[in-house]
Amino acid sequence: MTAKQRVMSGMRPTGRLHLGNYFGALDSWLKLQGKYECFHSIVDWHALTTAYQESEDIKDNILQMAIDWLSVGLDPNKSAIYVQSRVKEIAELHLLLSMIVPVSWLERCPTYKDQLVQLKDKEIATYGFLGYPNLMASDILICKASIVPVGEDQLPHLELAREIVRRFNFLYGETFPEPQALLNDVKVLPGLDGRKMSKSYGNTILLSEDPESARKKISMMITDPARIKKDDPGHPDICSVFAFHKVFSPDIVQERERECKAGQIGCVQCKRQLADNVVAFLEPIYERRKELEKNIDYVHDVLDDGYNKIKPIAQETIDEVRTKMGL
Amino acid sequence: MTAKQRVMSGMRPTGRLHLGNYFGALDSWLKLQGKYECFHSIVDWHALTTAYQESEDIKDNILQMAIDWLSVGLDPNKSAIYVQSRVKEIAELHLLLSMIVPVSWLERCPTYKDQLVQLKDKEIATYGFLGYPNLMASDILICKASIVPVGEDQLPHLELAREIVRRFNFLYGETFPEPQALLNDVKVLPGLDGRKMSKSYGNTILLSEDPESARKKISMMITDPARIKKDDPGHPDICSVFAFHKVFSPDIVQERERECKAGQIGCVQCKRQLADNVVAFLEPIYERRKELEKNIDYVHDVLDDGYNKIKPIAQETIDEVRTKMGL
Repeated sequence: MTAKQRVMSGMRPTGRLHLGNYFGALDSWLKLQGKYECFHSIVDWHALTTAYQESEDIKDNILQMAIDWLSVGLDPNKSAIYVQSRVKEIAELHLLLSMIVPVSWLERCPTYKDQLVQLKDKEIATYGFLGYPNLMASDILICKASIVPVGEDQLPHLELAREIVRRFNFLYGETFPEPQALLNDVKVLPGLDGRKMSKSYGNTILLSEDPESARKKISMMITDPARIKKDDPGHPDICSVFAFHKVFSPDIVQERERECKAGQIGCVQCKRQLADNVVAFLEPIYERRKELEKNIDYVHDVLDDGYNKIKPIAQETIDEVRTKMGL
Repeated sequence: MTAKQRVMSGMRPTGRLHLGNYFGALDSWLKLQGKYECFHSIVDWHALTTAYQESEDIKDNILQMAIDWLSVGLDPNKSAIYVQSRVKEIAELHLLLSMIVPVSWLERCPTYKDQLVQLKDKEIATYGFLGYPNLMASDILICKASIVPVGEDQLPHLELAREIVRRFNFLYGETFPEPQALLNDVKVLPGLDGRKMSKSYGNTILLSEDPESARKKISMMITDPARIKKDDPGHPDICSVFAFHKVFSPDIVQERERECKAGQIGCVQCKRQLADNVVAFLEPIYERRKELEKNIDYVHDVLDDGYNKIKPIAQETIDEVRTKMGL
């Protein structure tokens, strides 16, 4: 029997996760469980690359992220769930790989200059921020993962990780597999106001949302502004409620499109139906979270257990790298 | 009683040390022993910043450097002598500090652009090479050293370490002392050919030199080329042998200058006298080295012992830094 291929994925602990995060990544991770040997890392060092000036929440965010992951069904018996910064070997690998990674490779990353512009009110042109793709490569390579589930925006970083692998293997002999991207099967879910769902826009439904609060938020969602009366023909293609139905109500979505365009269903009724479906989705997550919140020790045990799974692998990798580099 | 101030210093394990290294740095370190709590690090990670493509000798170089240090009298009972790469906390501190260090501070270091030009046949424009001063700062700050013996060329790096300290203390509260430079009391010793003594010029006398080999090398040193016959007046200011006398024969140096200028002493006799003094200096070092080479286990014990001294200090520092940064 061949060993299962390793999958590595991580998320920055920047706050509670929302439905957009779920359908952008977690949903895809869940499908990989059991099929692969999965490593899921809460990458707190990465959070520092942009949040070093407001880092007081990181510790709580780590715990909340672990609870979010467990609530949606990430299974610690199938996967290793751990906190990046406990795995010191990642910091050492980052340092060792830094010796062979040209600065120009990092400067060339499209996200680097993009973010410098986007976050220009923060002082993030730091050495750590520049080296972020090298740290990400270290996360992947420390467990010799061959598959990395990513969004499209992460593809250049993964290409860089492959370049680092090729250079390392060339200089010191075959060591790492070239990690392949597995594009997340993203279901696009807009925010409540039709823009991208994002914490900073305040237009999210959290995975930890109280079902009643979710219901209320949905009742206030913006629909087709041109539709004044119930009989007016609607435009589902510009309606967030309809975009939600595509994800949460696949069985009725074609019929609903027809009804809306024909002015046969009112927005209030349409939203109520959506709320039922979203709540049906959120309720078990919410219940699991309540259980976990009562048993925080268990969550810490999961993270300890994840650390104990990655630790010997990380140790083995770093020993091999050190030896090959002559240390 | 106040605790002794901490002194941190390091050397790259790039090969056996020579007399130039001794009078450039080691001699100064020896004077600090006992007066301060000294930390002497064999900085093998630093060696990788420029030697990542020819790193197969690093391991042996580490051992030889430890033997050189012990042979000249660094006392493991007074100081911690350790290998940098065993102290993982330094790699982690390097990563954490990298989050607050602007890339521009590193690019601005005069040595950065200098070395890019000087070593232009090597591909060293790497992320690790750029970050070298941040790694050096981590070496110093991991043990909260307040004094760093350096050569003049290292002053900009130490200024950068102080800038990092100020920024860290400002962002996260008073944590590190600002390390002060203690300029090495350098005795300038040219190479056998009058150029700077350097392994790459092949003009060195090693600390581990067999005394007879040292005698032979001195007999072949280049003196004043204008002096053909013994009675010709010499020019001690351009003579390497005279430069050596200034270091090894302080008692006779004034008299010798007069004799040489007056053509009253021949180069052969002058060299023989120098050889006696150099050999008198090298012989006990050579004897101690022979003893140590017979007892390599002891050398490893010294390095283990040094690691055990720095480890709890490094652990305490990194715990404090992690907590203050919110991890």
